[in-house]
Amino acid sequence: MRFFSDNAAAACPQVMEALTAANRVDTAYDGDEWSKRLDGAFSDLFGKPVSALWVTTGTAANCLGLATLCPPHGAILCHNQAHIEVDEAGAPGFFTHGAKLTLLPGEGAKLTPETVEEACARVRDDVHQVQPAALSITNATEYGLSYRVDEVAALGEEAKRRGLGFHMDGARFANAVAFTGADPAEMTWRAGVDVMSFGFVKNGGMSAEALIFFDPAKADAVPRLRKRAGHLLSKGRYLAAQILAMLEGDLWLSNARAANAAAAALAKAAGPDRLVYPVEANELFVRMTNGEAAALRSQGYDFYDWGPGEVRLVTSWDQDMDDVAKLAAAIRSL
Amino acid sequence: MRFFSDNAAAACPQVMEALTAANRVDTAYDGDEWSKRLDGAFSDLFGKPVSALWVTTGTAANCLGLATLCPPHGAILCHNQAHIEVDEAGAPGFFTHGAKLTLLPGEGAKLTPETVEEACARVRDDVHQVQPAALSITNATEYGLSYRVDEVAALGEEAKRRGLGFHMDGARFANAVAFTGADPAEMTWRAGVDVMSFGFVKNGGMSAEALIFFDPAKADAVPRLRKRAGHLLSKGRYLAAQILAMLEGDLWLSNARAANAAAAALAKAAGPDRLVYPVEANELFVRMTNGEAAALRSQGYDFYDWGPGEVRLVTSWDQDMDDVAKLAAAIRSL
Amino acid sequence: MRFFSDNAAAACPQVMEALTAANRVDTAYDGDEWSKRLDGAFSDLFGKPVSALWVTTGTAANCLGLATLCPPHGAILCHNQAHIEVDEAGAPGFFTHGAKLTLLPGEGAKLTPETVEEACARVRDDVHQVQPAALSITNATEYGLSYRVDEVAALGEEAKRRGLGFHMDGARFANAVAFTGADPAEMTWRAGVDVMSFGFVKNGGMSAEALIFFDPAKADAVPRLRKRAGHLLSKGRYLAAQILAMLEGDLWLSNARAANAAAAALAKAAGPDRLVYPVEANELFVRMTNGEAAALRSQGYDFYDWGPGEVRLVTSWDQDMDDVAKLAAAIRSL
Amino acid sequence: MRFFSDNAAAACPQVMEALTAANRVDTAYDGDEWSKRLDGAFSDLFGKPVSALWVTTGTAANCLGLATLCPPHGAILCHNQAHIEVDEAGAPGFFTHGAKLTLLPGEGAKLTPETVEEACARVRDDVHQVQPAALSITNATEYGLSYRVDEVAALGEEAKRRGLGFHMDGARFANAVAFTGADPAEMTWRAGVDVMSFGFVKNGGMSAEALIFFDPAKADAVPRLRKRAGHLLSKGRYLAAQILAMLEGDLWLSNARAANAAAAALAKAAGPDRLVYPVEANELFVRMTNGEAAALRSQGYDFYDWGPGEVRLVTSWDQDMDDVAKLAAAIRSL
Repeated sequence: MRFFSDNAAAACPQVMEALTAANRVDTAYDGDEWSKRLDGAFSDLFGKPVSALWVTTGTAANCLGLATLCPPHGAILCHNQAHIEVDEAGAPGFFTHGAKLTLLPGEGAKLTPETVEEACARVRDDVHQVQPAALSITNATEYGLSYRVDEVAALGEEAKRRGLGFHMDGARFANAVAFTGADPAEMTWRAGVDVMSFGFVKNGGMSAEALIFFDPAKADAVPRLRKRAGHLLSKGRYLAAQILAMLEGDLWLSNARAANAAAAALAKAAGPDRLVYPVEANELFVRMTNGEAAALRSQGYDFYDWGPGEVRLVTSWDQDMDDVAKLAAAIRSL
Repeated sequence: MRFFSDNAAAACPQVMEALTAANRVDTAYDGDEWSKRLDGAFSDLFGKPVSALWVTTGTAANCLGLATLCPPHGAILCHNQAHIEVDEAGAPGFFTHGAKLTLLPGEGAKLTPETVEEACARVRDDVHQVQPAALSITNATEYGLSYRVDEVAALGEEAKRRGLGFHMDGARFANAVAFTGADPAEMTWRAGVDVMSFGFVKNGGMSAEALIFFDPAKADAVPRLRKRAGHLLSKGRYLAAQILAMLEGDLWLSNARAANAAAAALAKAAGPDRLVYPVEANELFVRMTNGEAAALRSQGYDFYDWGPGEVRLVTSWDQDMDDVAKLAAAIRSL
Repeated sequence: MRFFSDNAAAACPQVMEALTAANRVDTAYDGDEWSKRLDGAFSDLFGKPVSALWVTTGTAANCLGLATLCPPHGAILCHNQAHIEVDEAGAPGFFTHGAKLTLLPGEGAKLTPETVEEACARVRDDVHQVQPAALSITNATEYGLSYRVDEVAALGEEAKRRGLGFHMDGARFANAVAFTGADPAEMTWRAGVDVMSFGFVKNGGMSAEALIFFDPAKADAVPRLRKRAGHLLSKGRYLAAQILAMLEGDLWLSNARAANAAAAALAKAAGPDRLVYPVEANELFVRMTNGEAAALRSQGYDFYDWGPGEVRLVTSWDQDMDDVAKLAAAIRSL
Repeated sequence: MRFFSDNAAAACPQVMEALTAANRVDTAYDGDEWSKRLDGAFSDLFGKPVSALWVTTGTAANCLGLATLCPPHGAILCHNQAHIEVDEAGAPGFFTHGAKLTLLPGEGAKLTPETVEEACARVRDDVHQVQPAALSITNATEYGLSYRVDEVAALGEEAKRRGLGFHMDGARFANAVAFTGADPAEMTWRAGVDVMSFGFVKNGGMSAEALIFFDPAKADAVPRLRKRAGHLLSKGRYLAAQILAMLEGDLWLSNARAANAAAAALAKAAGPDRLVYPVEANELFVRMTNGEAAALRSQGYDFYDWGPGEVRLVTSWDQDMDDVAKLAAAIRSL
């Protein structure tokens, strides 16, 4: 029974149906009818006109977005455990032509205005030091915490005060919205976010993520950057169709709720003493001896170790709730 | 009736079935069973051990490949109408960190050893001039011509003599193999090709292309480059499955034969006087007055203008042969 | 007797004296009194407020300037014999992060609005093709021709109409001004030039070139780019002092006049039949058989071959006019 | 009286004389007789064949060197206070096309094999994480500490074990050698250093630094990289001549000894309680109240604040020892 990654999950039925429905002749690249509907669909979701582009990976979405916010000679402030720093193979450096990631601390991979302020205060305003140009946060974070609207807004204010572009890595944005119940608009552009990646693949999609610009005027160059990075698929309709299917009827939200519910059930079983962080999305970081982890694995549960004495459990949109109940019981009886 | 681009065609049924079959839990990224079978499948096809990676676009395949052959301070020799020069938005410059494309002439977008030699002879061997590091050809070419095995081999010898890496853009490799009847091995590594992009999307695929290294030892860094460029999809099995489905039973070849046959039928109808180039793949460049083009369009045929007095017709794996026959008749009666 | 390069000439006495005068304690980098005077000195020369920075090479000046005019995904239009294309080892690609040089034809390395128009007309305005962002000319050209003010202005208009930044490689700007008698302002910003490199090294300097922005507001990022490229010398006063010395009393102009006069004397001797181009600066391209070239060399004259049946002669600020007279006589008696 | 930077000092007389001696016609770029002697001069100094190139800044020397050791997708391990991280405006990212600096802790900006080991241990060996490719240390460090030979050798062994290239930023290498009395060879290549920047400008030079490759075979591409970065001056003889003048009679060492002696005198006056770090080169970091600092400044001493309650004093090759004695007395009487 699989609890190691939401990337391992299958694509959900509606996505597969959408691919079938899109499997006919249409204009190449992003000239097809599905791709053309993306801007509108996300504008509806966010309650304002936005520019939305499909890409195939969160890394591409994050880094194309960051490249519009930070010049090659600038710095992007992010958490020292941010996905862009830890798990994207240096892609931000590639897409930005060498911009610097300035790493900030923070419990559970969360940033605060204070840490941003401290980081900026350390930079002399001269040509010898790289000047901060953008701020990037991940919501939900790499440790499964969900920023609250007011936390994002406080960071947004800090970013604005310092002239920093504000980027949100939303690989698990759906889980954060599902957990907090926040309005997507409140969680993003109303809180000062300029650009976000909106994840679908971990949430039941097959191969499509969205890159959202809340100020369409700032998205002018992005289609060129996407093409130049080899990310303009020639049959883009199959990406757009996936996204539209997941926006329809708020499937993105119900899928995330399912994954979160599974995680919550496991969190309850684990109890506060075992949990390294509160469970606010679909990831759990659980204290466990090697022996305990081995015991669970011997019962057929698959998951990753996460540092000494800790394991990571990730739940998915399609998690079998019987499996979850069994794992919960198994954790309780450790 | 669509004759404007093979990118507009649908994905073929076997590809759709493969996606459905792959729609279950498996390891993320390229750790799944399908992705792991790619090296073997292409090694079988080419009769030697190769490294094969999936990517989603020909641009990514070409440019990742070129980035392994040419340092940032080197030059890539290619035709002045090469796709990498004309239609990839500067992607080679992005992936190679600024390498130069040195543009060569040649009828029908074909290169010869002579043009390569002339281009190299113009370069002084000093630090002021960018030194050639790689040679890139497209087969079938951007004008629908297919290199013969001995032509590729002659270029391969020239490349080897000059220490140039040799890249083949095989967006329509299938069409070239189908037209020439050549052995894939003879057409590539036996002729000196080091790296190729092997196209599937124009030939009935949905979103998967292959990048082939004929010397696996030279492919070491490529998985990192792919990830760093945001091209490592988290559910890679859906790409690998497409490719495997098209390799199975030589579907790639039968699809290409179908497209080529449609083009040949149209070529026969057009006759030599109208044809700008011999038709050796699935593209036709046809001399036609504006009035003639308008007449065809009024009968429901879609295609692009291609310079003054010329139009381009492209056929696909799924071209309806009745449509083709009708268009052929319509061309005849112009 | 040296006629092979103006780079081979010594530094002029006033430059050496300026170095001695600057050889005392002052603020590091460009905080010293000499560096601070640069903006003012060039503003006086050009009759408008400009931003001026020292760098040590023309390549750095050209490419830092171009990097402010052209994004990584854009193209710079230049002559196919432009120094930035032919003799800067791909530096434009490095500084611009991969922008493309689009090569234009033109007699004597001169561009015209027509060739610019033709080049632009060939570019489809879509994301697949690299869009022109800047125009670069060299004055005096790589073949020793000097643009007239109205020629520059016509190009400036064309650039403005198309939204292209306009760059002038002025490695031999002094020679062009000396030859044409044009006002420096008329030849540059009044004709639409946005950024120029202003050469001193070939004209009697030791190691300092100037990079001039005619709109200081567009120069904001340049000090950072200069530092990031390793071009901010820690004792910048020695560069600024050289430039100031050459601006003082129009030494830059009198040096150029001396070099031009030497070239003119040789041109007269060679006569129109031997000259590949009119001599309008300090370079001559002279038709000569191998035997004739050998004869001159045997008399002690040093110069480069320049293609079959042609040689290049370059004169310098310090050219001994007796040597020139002797060479002129030798040419006459070929 | 100036104690704020060794960059502020003048060039020493022998350097000025060398410039005058070199002020005559010679081959352009690095084809002149002085430039050609560099390899030999440094090979003599280091007791093995090396490749040596002049550049004009330490930033260029460091970053050109690092670019040969680290691919764009790799990481350079360095101290979090390293000059390449803190004071080079992101130049490493520019020259390496986006490689990452992984920041290590360590007292006084010194690294140890243990910190290197810890940093490497944190990196998973997969394509998602940037793999370390090079190690860079500064000697003397940014806080004026000098590595001992065995400390460098221990780092060299660690680097070799992990397959890391080993770079030394030797902006104040002379001061480190002068302080430790170490043999230059022992301190560098015998201790595993692959590439170093050898500083002259802070030590009495005007505008020339050296970039040394201890394995000439690995320096092949560097002349091209230097040119491509705009760092190949057209009259290179004026740089080579400076370096040769400072190597002659070990002027580099006597200049450094003079600067170190001045620093040592001030260190003695300050006493251990005031010194943040032992003084092992020509920099002092001294604890001092704002009032004390103001008192010294009112007596005419110029220096920088360095964080709360600390100031930095830097001595130079030409420091007047009477000034030093007076400042020492002033410090004593605080």
